[in-house]
Amino acid sequence: MVSSKTARKLEVASPVPADIDIANSVSPLHISDIAADLNLSPHHYDLYGKFKAKGRVEEVIRYLYILSVDVLLPVLDEFQGSPDGYYVVVGGITPTPLGEGKSTTTVGLCQALGAFLDKKVVTCIRQPSQGPTFGIKGGAAGGGYSQVIPMDEFNLHLTGDIHAITAANNLLAAAIDTRMFHEASQSDKALFNRLCPPNKEGKRTFSDIMFRRLKKLGIDKTNPDDLTPEEVKSFARLDIDPDSITWRRVMDVNDRFLRKITVGQGPEEKGMVRETGFDISVASEIMAVLALTTSLADMRERLGKMVIGNSKAGDPVTADDLGLGGALTVLMKDAINPTLMQTLEGTPVLVHAGPFANIAHGNSSVVADKIALKLVGPGGFVVTEAGFGADIGAEKFMNIKCRYSGLTPQCAVIVATVRALKMHGGGPAVVAGRPLDRAYLTENVSLVEAGCVNLARHISNMKAYGVNVVVAINMFSTDTEAELNAVKKAATDAGAFDAVICTHHAHGGKGAVDLGIAVQKACENVTETMRFLYPLDISIKEKIEAIAKSYGAAGVEYSEQAEKQIAMYTSQGFTHLPICMAKTQYSFSHNAAEKGAPSGFILPIRDVRASIGAGFIYPLVGTMSTMPGLPTRPCFFDIDLDTTTGRVIGLS
Amino acid sequence: MVSSKTARKLEVASPVPADIDIANSVSPLHISDIAADLNLSPHHYDLYGKFKAKGRVEEVIRYLYILSVDVLLPVLDEFQGSPDGYYVVVGGITPTPLGEGKSTTTVGLCQALGAFLDKKVVTCIRQPSQGPTFGIKGGAAGGGYSQVIPMDEFNLHLTGDIHAITAANNLLAAAIDTRMFHEASQSDKALFNRLCPPNKEGKRTFSDIMFRRLKKLGIDKTNPDDLTPEEVKSFARLDIDPDSITWRRVMDVNDRFLRKITVGQGPEEKGMVRETGFDISVASEIMAVLALTTSLADMRERLGKMVIGNSKAGDPVTADDLGLGGALTVLMKDAINPTLMQTLEGTPVLVHAGPFANIAHGNSSVVADKIALKLVGPGGFVVTEAGFGADIGAEKFMNIKCRYSGLTPQCAVIVATVRALKMHGGGPAVVAGRPLDRAYLTENVSLVEAGCVNLARHISNMKAYGVNVVVAINMFSTDTEAELNAVKKAATDAGAFDAVICTHHAHGGKGAVDLGIAVQKACENVTETMRFLYPLDISIKEKIEAIAKSYGAAGVEYSEQAEKQIAMYTSQGFTHLPICMAKTQYSFSHNAAEKGAPSGFILPIRDVRASIGAGFIYPLVGTMSTMPGLPTRPCFFDIDLDTTTGRVIGLS
Repeated sequence: MVSSKTARKLEVASPVPADIDIANSVSPLHISDIAADLNLSPHHYDLYGKFKAKGRVEEVIRYLYILSVDVLLPVLDEFQGSPDGYYVVVGGITPTPLGEGKSTTTVGLCQALGAFLDKKVVTCIRQPSQGPTFGIKGGAAGGGYSQVIPMDEFNLHLTGDIHAITAANNLLAAAIDTRMFHEASQSDKALFNRLCPPNKEGKRTFSDIMFRRLKKLGIDKTNPDDLTPEEVKSFARLDIDPDSITWRRVMDVNDRFLRKITVGQGPEEKGMVRETGFDISVASEIMAVLALTTSLADMRERLGKMVIGNSKAGDPVTADDLGLGGALTVLMKDAINPTLMQTLEGTPVLVHAGPFANIAHGNSSVVADKIALKLVGPGGFVVTEAGFGADIGAEKFMNIKCRYSGLTPQCAVIVATVRALKMHGGGPAVVAGRPLDRAYLTENVSLVEAGCVNLARHISNMKAYGVNVVVAINMFSTDTEAELNAVKKAATDAGAFDAVICTHHAHGGKGAVDLGIAVQKACENVTETMRFLYPLDISIKEKIEAIAKSYGAAGVEYSEQAEKQIAMYTSQGFTHLPICMAKTQYSFSHNAAEKGAPSGFILPIRDVRASIGAGFIYPLVGTMSTMPGLPTRPCFFDIDLDTTTGRVIGLS
Repeated sequence: MVSSKTARKLEVASPVPADIDIANSVSPLHISDIAADLNLSPHHYDLYGKFKAKGRVEEVIRYLYILSVDVLLPVLDEFQGSPDGYYVVVGGITPTPLGEGKSTTTVGLCQALGAFLDKKVVTCIRQPSQGPTFGIKGGAAGGGYSQVIPMDEFNLHLTGDIHAITAANNLLAAAIDTRMFHEASQSDKALFNRLCPPNKEGKRTFSDIMFRRLKKLGIDKTNPDDLTPEEVKSFARLDIDPDSITWRRVMDVNDRFLRKITVGQGPEEKGMVRETGFDISVASEIMAVLALTTSLADMRERLGKMVIGNSKAGDPVTADDLGLGGALTVLMKDAINPTLMQTLEGTPVLVHAGPFANIAHGNSSVVADKIALKLVGPGGFVVTEAGFGADIGAEKFMNIKCRYSGLTPQCAVIVATVRALKMHGGGPAVVAGRPLDRAYLTENVSLVEAGCVNLARHISNMKAYGVNVVVAINMFSTDTEAELNAVKKAATDAGAFDAVICTHHAHGGKGAVDLGIAVQKACENVTETMRFLYPLDISIKEKIEAIAKSYGAAGVEYSEQAEKQIAMYTSQGFTHLPICMAKTQYSFSHNAAEKGAPSGFILPIRDVRASIGAGFIYPLVGTMSTMPGLPTRPCFFDIDLDTTTGRVIGLS
């Protein structure tokens, strides 16, 4: 094991200064040094984002101070034969609206492994959405002495991947409405003539993408002039049923007024109005494709086969039918490369993809994890974060992400806080922006003990996958020894491999050394083989019910609409896909108010949708908003630029 | 004069290959070499986008192959004392829908100046919108042997400036609707308590941006608790009149179905529905701010004072009132740096900002032009392109852009084609995507002569600014000598300094050497001082009428709505701003079908809006769409990615 040349230990101050002050107090390392430490050569990455350099052009590299680079996908091919490192997923208990420090713990654990335990380590995390950054949550770079830097670059634009998703998603949306519009006003022949116009010599040709539709229709002719009128009609007329369209527009902003809108009200659109809406960009199927794809060629196929709705005859209509699979791939070609950044203690971080775990599959990219596992090699660690509680983020990590990647984790870390466990034990509601009730600030061991049912269920659910579970107790200054011991006991009683108190927020990697050691032992002592919660070859309903059971549900109730959609996807041949539940993150059940470990409830499935390109069916459990809103006083009130220094201020 | 080390002459093929094939046949130079040739040191720029590098990290710079860099704004401060080079604006005659090769001529002229005439030269052009790239127009990198490379990077995302504009614009839009929503359901006191919540110690504070609103309201208190109930109300309640809102959402996609929409139809929005719509992103006021700003501090002020509508009492409500001026600046902090690219012949190009000229002010950024003028220095040339015909793009260049920049052009180039002049002389309609009528493919000198009235009016309009006018006749293979001579004669008769035939599409810079020589002479022989078309201290109507007169109008007719808006902006104290007409690019008049040089018409002003942050009033002349649509067969049908090589195919 060669220890890292870039990892370094921090000097910490007490009390812990503001996140942005800590972030600004550390000079980022040359990212090329971090890359070199991972055996990445310059031909493995694209420079991206900012750098500062001084001196002559020939000397620039010595002063290179690049803040992020995109690691290029071909790295995977080059390292194909190398063995992987250990693979660790970080999930959490059911959180309060304040969050339980899962990103912070993920970063802190990696700082411990890299800067204190001399391990090769890569942190794999998601790119944050700008919606929450300017809304209620603020940034997502971790906090205290466990952060990804530079945090302003991390939280804003980064290398533009989410913007690329927005652009691609909305180009497809525009193509859908416009195609229906043009089909409504043109004869089959006129449509066909426009789709395959004669060139200067009067000769017509199909473009490459049109052959995909021809193939789907079973037409093997290559000369447009040879098509029969029936073939012309079936080729040129997608005949989209407006009521069947599931493709929505997206925007990376918390804009609640776009949740439900009517489009097409301009006079030129001739009355073709339609109700639709916007989701936040990270909820786009294209984000899920980015997170689950394994290569450019795979991404091209997934983007092309995304289903936007049905024809009036009930056949799925795809992006390729609309002529767009190629153009969408072009828009996403750079987004497929993960971005290399660093922690405060100089350990490498791969940032890539950013689906939410409640309304999407909630995990960073397969590509980043695969590259990272090769880069750390045997004995090294890749720590990847799954969103929200382990019921949603980590469940989808196992059953969707690992299914597509073929990767096997050795250890699942579950992050718990005394605060959240007290809430699960019956403590008063925790509301963002309001002062905490004193129940959370003074010792109350019985409240903690009562809440540990939540932790216990998450542990047993994770153990069922055949991984070792380590509980990371993210300690707050108000936690007492008795409370912390209660959590440790409950965790080991529930079958955790270990339960460790961590103070990485206050102390950086040093505060997570014990956690690092526990995770190492957990990875080295796997006794079971990994198994999924459900096989793919059962019905959609059986899969939904398997997941519902893991939530504690006694049964599942399907709305009429859900029944209709399940029947449709079944008849369309999409039963073989895994399931991505869209469910509140605030309870095992569909009811955010039900804390602890509810059981016996009936899980209501309001609707069922499909992301065929990404590769999953997603049932909507109760009402799930796919577009957040802004509070009365959003974070943006505090954010400004120091126009003299160019520094961002007020970002948290 | 030190001649360029990077400029190089091309080998050209005949017939001219496809644009993408030419672009791919040339290896881009190391952008650092191009930067060095402009006396830019590495500390003057940020690396951005792609590069390829081989070898050890220490050697990476030698192999640097960066495709674009962002030139940092502080360059301007450093070169403050240096004298400027010559400043040339490229406009055109009233175009056909096929375009007259204005970008191509701009690039070709610079290739001639740099690679053949040994001049320091920088091309300043706009970043293209992705809407037309995937819609009907294709890319905007020039064409043939006069292109900006790499054309796929140029046309797609680039360094994310337009995406940043979209994000900023839509954050403001979301804040408007959400603020109205929260104000509707909360008492003054509750609103105030949320805007200025007590911290842990129970103390309230105003955030910095709130002091801007307090100042505007004439409240000089610094402690929130000291405000009277009336002051609390006036501070916390913006009381936006929904019918007065002029701020629309934007998207960089041709999505006609978003032109007019109804938002807020979700059940949680409690019936607060509102009609609004999306514009294409380049029409955002934030794009205009980017194009007209001169520094970070200036941009901060402009973004904060953008007016989104009025309070019910009729007072303008600004982005700063909503708490957003700082956050918008943070989103735009990197976008303010222009992007350095290169032509096929290795001359430098600054790409920055991209407003359309028909619905916005149509010129690239002041910042890029200012930097470029310093970099080329005395005897060097900055060639900047103004959109569409000189009646809109170049008019706004003179009266808006030069007014804000304080810069003075020496020469205006007007690009003309025989094809467009034949159309103006009475030739049949030219329609994109349909074969050209034979009138355009065979000699018809009288048609050309008749059409030259259009060219003549553009020449005399431009001469009125006190600049020398050079006509660039962009030659097509079907043009005859007699036709070309007719254009030359008409141009010099109308007072042009010179009129030159160019073949840069077929021959690169070599085909524009005569044009380069003519432009040099025009710059060296300025006899007049620059003057504007109208002073700022006359009424809004007088300014509109001055511009209308330059179109050939006999008068102006204002709708009731326009009258109302003019009265409002006048009473709000915005009369001092220049005017940015939103008018069809296909005629001097409001009627696209009126070719040649129409006169005697009455110009209808349908509505009047204001971009207070950008700094202009914009009358809408007739019906102008601010969101393009997709045709039946958009460009995207041909665009794909070669997933083996990663190369973009089918982009034109």
